[in-house]
Amino acid sequence: MFEVAELKNRITKQQYDREVSELRTQLLDVQQKLEIAGLPVVVLIAGVDGAGKGDLINTLNEWFDPRYMCTHAFSQPSDEERERPHHWRYWMSLPPRGRIGVYAIGWYGPPMADRVYDRIGNAKLDAELVHINKLEKELADDGMLIVKCWLHLSKKQQENLIQKLEKDPETRWRVSDVDRKHLKLYKKFVGIAERVLRETSTGEAPWLIINGYDQHYRRLTIANHLIERISARLEAQSNGFSSTAALQQKPTLVNNGPSLLSSLNPELKLGKSDYQERLALCQGRISQLTRRARQRKVSTIMVFEGWDAAGKGGVIRRITQALDARNYRVIPVAAPTDEEKSHHYLWRFWRHLPRDGKVTIYDRSWYGRVLVERVENLAKPEEWARAYSEINDFEEELTDHGIILVKYWMHISKDEQLKRFKEREKTSYKRYKITEEDHRNREKWDLYEAAVNEMITRTSTEYAPWRVIEANNKYYGRIRVLKSLCDAYESQLGG
Amino acid sequence: MFEVAELKNRITKQQYDREVSELRTQLLDVQQKLEIAGLPVVVLIAGVDGAGKGDLINTLNEWFDPRYMCTHAFSQPSDEERERPHHWRYWMSLPPRGRIGVYAIGWYGPPMADRVYDRIGNAKLDAELVHINKLEKELADDGMLIVKCWLHLSKKQQENLIQKLEKDPETRWRVSDVDRKHLKLYKKFVGIAERVLRETSTGEAPWLIINGYDQHYRRLTIANHLIERISARLEAQSNGFSSTAALQQKPTLVNNGPSLLSSLNPELKLGKSDYQERLALCQGRISQLTRRARQRKVSTIMVFEGWDAAGKGGVIRRITQALDARNYRVIPVAAPTDEEKSHHYLWRFWRHLPRDGKVTIYDRSWYGRVLVERVENLAKPEEWARAYSEINDFEEELTDHGIILVKYWMHISKDEQLKRFKEREKTSYKRYKITEEDHRNREKWDLYEAAVNEMITRTSTEYAPWRVIEANNKYYGRIRVLKSLCDAYESQLGG
Repeated sequence: MFEVAELKNRITKQQYDREVSELRTQLLDVQQKLEIAGLPVVVLIAGVDGAGKGDLINTLNEWFDPRYMCTHAFSQPSDEERERPHHWRYWMSLPPRGRIGVYAIGWYGPPMADRVYDRIGNAKLDAELVHINKLEKELADDGMLIVKCWLHLSKKQQENLIQKLEKDPETRWRVSDVDRKHLKLYKKFVGIAERVLRETSTGEAPWLIINGYDQHYRRLTIANHLIERISARLEAQSNGFSSTAALQQKPTLVNNGPSLLSSLNPELKLGKSDYQERLALCQGRISQLTRRARQRKVSTIMVFEGWDAAGKGGVIRRITQALDARNYRVIPVAAPTDEEKSHHYLWRFWRHLPRDGKVTIYDRSWYGRVLVERVENLAKPEEWARAYSEINDFEEELTDHGIILVKYWMHISKDEQLKRFKEREKTSYKRYKITEEDHRNREKWDLYEAAVNEMITRTSTEYAPWRVIEANNKYYGRIRVLKSLCDAYESQLGG
Repeated sequence: MFEVAELKNRITKQQYDREVSELRTQLLDVQQKLEIAGLPVVVLIAGVDGAGKGDLINTLNEWFDPRYMCTHAFSQPSDEERERPHHWRYWMSLPPRGRIGVYAIGWYGPPMADRVYDRIGNAKLDAELVHINKLEKELADDGMLIVKCWLHLSKKQQENLIQKLEKDPETRWRVSDVDRKHLKLYKKFVGIAERVLRETSTGEAPWLIINGYDQHYRRLTIANHLIERISARLEAQSNGFSSTAALQQKPTLVNNGPSLLSSLNPELKLGKSDYQERLALCQGRISQLTRRARQRKVSTIMVFEGWDAAGKGGVIRRITQALDARNYRVIPVAAPTDEEKSHHYLWRFWRHLPRDGKVTIYDRSWYGRVLVERVENLAKPEEWARAYSEINDFEEELTDHGIILVKYWMHISKDEQLKRFKEREKTSYKRYKITEEDHRNREKWDLYEAAVNEMITRTSTEYAPWRVIEANNKYYGRIRVLKSLCDAYESQLGG
């Protein structure tokens, strides 16, 4: 979930200065409009320590007209608060129509802290999150716009920040024992945050996750996001939509955000003889491991997604060479049949779930919903926006059942793709693979790339993480997949 | 929740014969229309043993065109099914667009059985219900119409049925040991059913709860309900609505259903001297009990709803006479203030929640949402339809916090109301209480009565049951309230 947000993204002082005054004008403009339209807005800022929550909230207070907004930070409940149900203080603080309420962590604070310090377990945490979802749904149903932002830092970034502050005598006082303690809890905290964000990223109130390391970047990004969400909402309202969930499901994509894909190293290579040696080794291991899984009645689902010509077919063949033909099926996913079209879009994937000990390999998958169907407008915005959590739920059912689920995104650069298209056109028996459509798709590369980034952010879960494979070099890419597959089997089946 | 459905409702053979052929024509007509519109429909029939689930499913198979529908009953999972995630068999069975799938208990079967036989606890049950809600939401979002019917029997009715079958040598074989065992589990089963129905009565897929004792009644009622739900849905679709939750939230009220209110005995009376004696006793007890609650820091919320002139004010005064003036507040609920209007409709009730040990008395309450706002069209259908579960959640938060919550519906007959209006008009200092509006409201008596019945059915929970008070006789009504209040305190505070 935090893969993309681990990447630092920098906006220079010059660019920041250039953009900021225009942005502030726009912010005041949407604020005025929402006041006239009577739209209540909740802006909730949360994230890891040191990622700039405080700075961001101060900035919003500076940039918005403070007369029509209010900021709320909650610490230990007062007597007054403790003597009422624990959501009482949040209810009392909610902004009226036409106003903005900014929340530092808000209702997420107590359950997350309780979980981090093991005062509650996962079951109780989940119950609290159901409670929070009900609250947010109720408010959204009533017409409130809820914008939730999560500021992330990689562990290294968090360490760097603390070191920087400690070095400077003028800022040393800002590093407390609590910070040092939190740094130790980093991994645990981020694991819990992932669960919280996954369970509460709903159609009504999705989370925006960004890297918070660079002050300029986080300020501009959140401000832009606010302008976009508020404007979209006001426009939908003026078009006569009421407060249905659908109209709130505007994509939460950050256009100027960092791209996971662009951060990959396209230069990774493997020579032919090295490749052949490793391939034989990997296939041997896979053969053994899948046999063991079969004996233990553990089934497997492999999902392959990636750019056209990224080598999905090639790597699938290298895997199936190592499998017993009676035990696997490859499901190539193209346009749905008539029968499939007459069901829910997940139905055609449910059909092919493997029995105990069997393997199903999906060559493209349910992720089509948030990739091609999104980019080509085959699904409505509310449909694909809703799909992220539907897919997470679906995959949770699979892994809860004990299925080993692995997902690969095969990545190549745009140039490499063109090269491969041209090669295919030259080879007679591969020419059929290239159509006009493939070239048309290339024109939408940026849109697809944005969709892939959002997909990976929102559907990488601890039970089903995405594995992004640098596949500019075919040999390298294949070995990466095969090795990661072995690792997945070994970690689930034991030694 | 089952108060109304405890009442037997009988439709005579003649009436049944008169209505049935017209009804069957209509059923076939909506079935044809939904086929053309490509609307998939799930009809789920569940309920207590002996309430006629099987008979109803057979009837639907006879009345609908069987070529476009399919019936599914699930018993122990097969090997095929066990080897997939446990919702797999439901997914595989779902009707395609344009078809009807009828389910005997469906996905509710395993979790309910597991809970009844204590194979799982409430926490695990709740988790399963969240899972079911996600499934139903996903299907509804995809455009499926989900109709869920619960056939109820009172314990006495269930006993009667078994005795009847046993007496007749021709039907004795139909009574199994399982039935006798289930009869013993009646109370437990109904308690669990209440939890299940409450948690899964969502906007997308609300439960219809009816009494199943009379064959004619249950058949006609469910058939009418189906016609109504399908027609409403087809109409909304043809008006260009997509599959939003809102359009599914048609009221689930059964118009020809039994009325809890009409089953009350209006003749219950208490003489003046008896009344005075008991009043003094009750007030003494209340005074003691509220003092004890105050010491233990237990707070109380009392909710009074009822017909105009039913005596809410009078009974509230009798209660407050027994309270310490520093510890209670009476909140008369009239039209909301400007500030209140600019918030969620529950906000103005959250405001007045009592601190530890205090008492808040609401003279009318949040139930206005599903009574006056519904009947007078002050709230949109999707707004009041959603409110039942919002209110249940709200009240659960209150009782989870340890607040004692009691709710009274003060009931008088229509004639009694008119008598009281006339009396008030005669008494100069009471005349201000009667306005033109009160008389106008009388014209909508039936609509209000239907709304009250649905309110009591859908918001009577084990943590906050409605107490319906026969108040045609003022003395009798007041003593009933005061005694029940004492009982509530005693059961929560201990002896």
